[in-house]
Amino acid sequence: MNKQQLTENIKRKKTFLCVGLDTDIKKIPEHLLNEEDPIFAFNKEIIDATAPYCIAYKPNLAFYESMGVKGWIAFEKTVNYIRENYPDQFIIADAKRGDIGNTSAMYARTFFEELDIDSVTVAPYMGEDSVTPFLSYEGKWVILLALTSNKGSHDFQLTVDEHGERLFEKVLRTSKKWADDNNMMYVVGATQGKMFTDIRKIVPDHFLLVPGIGAQGGSLADVCQYGMNKNCGLIVNSSRAIIYADKTENFAKVAGEEAHKVQQQMEEELKKAEII
Amino acid sequence: MNKQQLTENIKRKKTFLCVGLDTDIKKIPEHLLNEEDPIFAFNKEIIDATAPYCIAYKPNLAFYESMGVKGWIAFEKTVNYIRENYPDQFIIADAKRGDIGNTSAMYARTFFEELDIDSVTVAPYMGEDSVTPFLSYEGKWVILLALTSNKGSHDFQLTVDEHGERLFEKVLRTSKKWADDNNMMYVVGATQGKMFTDIRKIVPDHFLLVPGIGAQGGSLADVCQYGMNKNCGLIVNSSRAIIYADKTENFAKVAGEEAHKVQQQMEEELKKAEII
Repeated sequence: MNKQQLTENIKRKKTFLCVGLDTDIKKIPEHLLNEEDPIFAFNKEIIDATAPYCIAYKPNLAFYESMGVKGWIAFEKTVNYIRENYPDQFIIADAKRGDIGNTSAMYARTFFEELDIDSVTVAPYMGEDSVTPFLSYEGKWVILLALTSNKGSHDFQLTVDEHGERLFEKVLRTSKKWADDNNMMYVVGATQGKMFTDIRKIVPDHFLLVPGIGAQGGSLADVCQYGMNKNCGLIVNSSRAIIYADKTENFAKVAGEEAHKVQQQMEEELKKAEII
Repeated sequence: MNKQQLTENIKRKKTFLCVGLDTDIKKIPEHLLNEEDPIFAFNKEIIDATAPYCIAYKPNLAFYESMGVKGWIAFEKTVNYIRENYPDQFIIADAKRGDIGNTSAMYARTFFEELDIDSVTVAPYMGEDSVTPFLSYEGKWVILLALTSNKGSHDFQLTVDEHGERLFEKVLRTSKKWADDNNMMYVVGATQGKMFTDIRKIVPDHFLLVPGIGAQGGSLADVCQYGMNKNCGLIVNSSRAIIYADKTENFAKVAGEEAHKVQQQMEEELKKAEII
């Protein structure tokens, strides 16, 4: 999916919500445990209920890998289900990969050839040749970690270098030479508030993937105030606050309602910014 | 496996070689493609041929994930095969993971509970709470990326901060407070030569996992000169130069011979340093 299509989806559906499919066998409703593939059964219902209110899905690989082979099967089935039934949804493999060139190339093959995924999150620590193998696929995206939502983001990402630049700023400035805003996005945590202003100085036109609203406590209003650009330029993720809003047989309906509430807040923000 | 056991294995077997199981279906001998599980068939023969000459195996997850579900099955079978047949081998899941706390905890569950793996490589960019979930398992290890072997290591890892400290040095100094040398190691590329001296100033007693000899061109002699400590403190990895040394039906025998050659060089280095 290219940048224009993604922006059109946001305007048409009046939402920039991404639903994070952090599906944990220990947290899904009990009645699903009788299903042949409980993880996929859960995802399928969540997807059907939330699809009208979001433009992206982000399965986090950790949750699937923790189930071993069964988890991988559920992951693949989930990706294929979205692709077949909701072709306008942008799929993000939240994998935070990054390795030496020939290894990153293997990961790229997995996500972009074996599976029809739109984008993968990548960690920047190993530098250019760990990222570029993901960039050789037309219409596919790297989403590079810049300033994450967790407390540990302070340990290294805010380190000020000898020229007065913080590490996350150097990551943005350096990596935007590797690719343009048609195949690179950045992860910026919703918990980072006014830091979005500094980020927009370096990458005004790039899409930002923003985790951290909901369970992690970030504010959607702050993210929009400081991070939105003239085409929105935001994909805001919520995982736990939507998918685990209810633990009964009613879980999917309630998840849909929660997603709808977020969509309505996003519609207001898009109107306020005169994007729709 | 604890530090003392690992050191004893090194002294007893006179080697600190780790064989990297970067098994690529496109690179294995053709006759194996008729096997039910060609990746596992390859690994099994490589392991049987090289086990006398190494103390560790490092499957790189990218190579398995690129095969989807089949790849995960091959990965699990490989880990279980090593565990059952060569219990003195240290198993490294080269995964370069690292995510927010609850997600890192899922990865830890995968590698340390679902599978009986000794250690996992982790990327430091997201800081303390992305690493600590891996540290709560007795006898299990985090191997944190410090200074990697690839060209891109220069992009961010060598960035000098306002106090004159390079990022990889800050990673070492900061992270060694999170755990001691009984459950933390560091990745330092063999291509980094004299930088090992600077690293040993900060972490004199930690084990270092050293990729980059063989196909990547690093020198074993340099690594030993600048990086070895009084208990060796090194696990040096070779992947492609050993496992793909021969592409005929003779591949395992030749891989064993290559591993034996490296073991002999390592024995010399251990004697030179009066460790054995």
